[in-house]
Amino acid sequence: MKRTLLIALALGLALVFGDLAMAQSSDPLSSWNDGKAKQSITEFVAKVTEKGSPEFVPPAERIAVFDNDGTLWAEQPMYFQLLFALDRVKALAPKHPEWKDKEPFASLFKGDVKAALAGGERAVLEIVMATHAGMTTAEFEKIVKDWLATARHPTTRRPYTEMVYQPMLELLAYLRASGFKTFIVSGGGIEFMRPWVESVYGIPPEQVVGSSIKTKYEMRDGKPVLVRLPELNFVNDEDGKPIGIHTQIGRRPIAAFGNSDGDLQMLQWTTAGQGPRFALYVHHTDAEREWAYDRDSSIGRLDKGLDEARARDWTIVDMKRDWKVVYPIDRR
Amino acid sequence: MKRTLLIALALGLALVFGDLAMAQSSDPLSSWNDGKAKQSITEFVAKVTEKGSPEFVPPAERIAVFDNDGTLWAEQPMYFQLLFALDRVKALAPKHPEWKDKEPFASLFKGDVKAALAGGERAVLEIVMATHAGMTTAEFEKIVKDWLATARHPTTRRPYTEMVYQPMLELLAYLRASGFKTFIVSGGGIEFMRPWVESVYGIPPEQVVGSSIKTKYEMRDGKPVLVRLPELNFVNDEDGKPIGIHTQIGRRPIAAFGNSDGDLQMLQWTTAGQGPRFALYVHHTDAEREWAYDRDSSIGRLDKGLDEARARDWTIVDMKRDWKVVYPIDRR
Repeated sequence: MKRTLLIALALGLALVFGDLAMAQSSDPLSSWNDGKAKQSITEFVAKVTEKGSPEFVPPAERIAVFDNDGTLWAEQPMYFQLLFALDRVKALAPKHPEWKDKEPFASLFKGDVKAALAGGERAVLEIVMATHAGMTTAEFEKIVKDWLATARHPTTRRPYTEMVYQPMLELLAYLRASGFKTFIVSGGGIEFMRPWVESVYGIPPEQVVGSSIKTKYEMRDGKPVLVRLPELNFVNDEDGKPIGIHTQIGRRPIAAFGNSDGDLQMLQWTTAGQGPRFALYVHHTDAEREWAYDRDSSIGRLDKGLDEARARDWTIVDMKRDWKVVYPIDRR
Repeated sequence: MKRTLLIALALGLALVFGDLAMAQSSDPLSSWNDGKAKQSITEFVAKVTEKGSPEFVPPAERIAVFDNDGTLWAEQPMYFQLLFALDRVKALAPKHPEWKDKEPFASLFKGDVKAALAGGERAVLEIVMATHAGMTTAEFEKIVKDWLATARHPTTRRPYTEMVYQPMLELLAYLRASGFKTFIVSGGGIEFMRPWVESVYGIPPEQVVGSSIKTKYEMRDGKPVLVRLPELNFVNDEDGKPIGIHTQIGRRPIAAFGNSDGDLQMLQWTTAGQGPRFALYVHHTDAEREWAYDRDSSIGRLDKGLDEARARDWTIVDMKRDWKVVYPIDRR
């Protein structure tokens, strides 16, 4: 009797899974045009997930890392986190009368972003520290969430979280359905991303690697808080990406996705591991639906990376040619 | 026909799962004696996992953090990582003739560990840097694995990985079976733990938070490597534990497990969150089967933490009374 039931169960399972497989044969990467890029992805996933494949990789080792700015969401006309910081400067201005005569703030108030950022890295750092430090981690999380709920992109007038790439959302889901653990490895602030990436990308906070400032543990009214200090802790860009991956993930990814020279070391580190590896660059070639930029852009420059990708036959996504739609709102 | 199969499947599933449930009704915490400590654990897990419970916590938020030294494995007569460092000093001695006349190394060679460590934190740091830095991360991983495969504990003569606590192994498995994600949050070196905790505790490298030294990305013969530098990056102890948790996990745990004052801030941070929280101290009370120490110990001192645990009614495991066995080898 028990054996009969088990056989019925096995039969049922086989049939039901057969049905599921059919139902799912609707393409998981439906926003990707057929072509070399899409094919390289599905072939890689097939060979590392098929039991018995000589290149099979156990699920625990299926780590995939994604840059964020320019890879999962847009980054023009400047990094969205910088737009956040500029909005914060305006919001905080009444509390900082001294900013009126002090660069980079003075230029910002005149609406001259270019002049404000002329001070280079130091100016950016000053803006970041003035807007990202001095509060508890819980307070900062709320500030980010509130901003995202109301802020609009300067040219598209859309919420920033709608400027994520539909084909990449499908890719994230496809990899996870194939037993991969997906991580963000971004030069952006780790605490700027964590409040929203779980709902938008399905990536939990513990799978976000990013840049950070130092924090301090403190008791306030008998309750512990973490206070954000105006001091850099870690810059997760270029050389920092393999270091961030090693510190926080502790296992070499088998697949890496980026769009700029800042991701090059991450792609090198990933592909230098033993066994099957996958590296992909998103190339911004679509001036009409998104933006077109590469070697000469100050944001998301892709120059050395493009040469190395071509030389090493990494996958290069030609956004204009390879993506049916760019943003989720474009589907239909 | 299809419907018939689905019904058969459902029936089969129900029966098979019924059988599984029976098979598993053998106690998942069988090495724990019945009592307040064990009961507090199962009650907490029940209330956060039962659908419809007013204190239900979604799986994604079921984060549990565990100290390692003295909580998951033993830590006497000194931290095992320090014993590793001392062994490494001996192994490296031929390459460092200058150590013969230099403290803390000179005392170590005379077998006088006490004198070597008399220099306090600075002496320990010097030993750690001399033995943990200067190689690639891959080389260090191999050194740790090789050591663990052959080293024996000075008094029990057992491999260190057999000096883990059987009741805690059961607790880790029980929590994971209940939808928790288990993390190590240890003052120990993150790269000293990662090579073995996956096979011993079932905790993957990306769920290990620990102390670290800085690393540097470098090309060697066209291959990228990460070189370990003799410079502290982060000390994941005391105040550092909530900071480490926030940096790497980015979500406040709902349960925390420790054994010393070095874990107190982690337990405070965990229990200060909204909703159901759980904090537990392992109290080393078993001089016969393990060790007995608390307020006056230089290793794993439990003093302020013990007071706070009592005042706040956290769970305190009395090792002698609450654990049927200590080490896996003691079962039978």
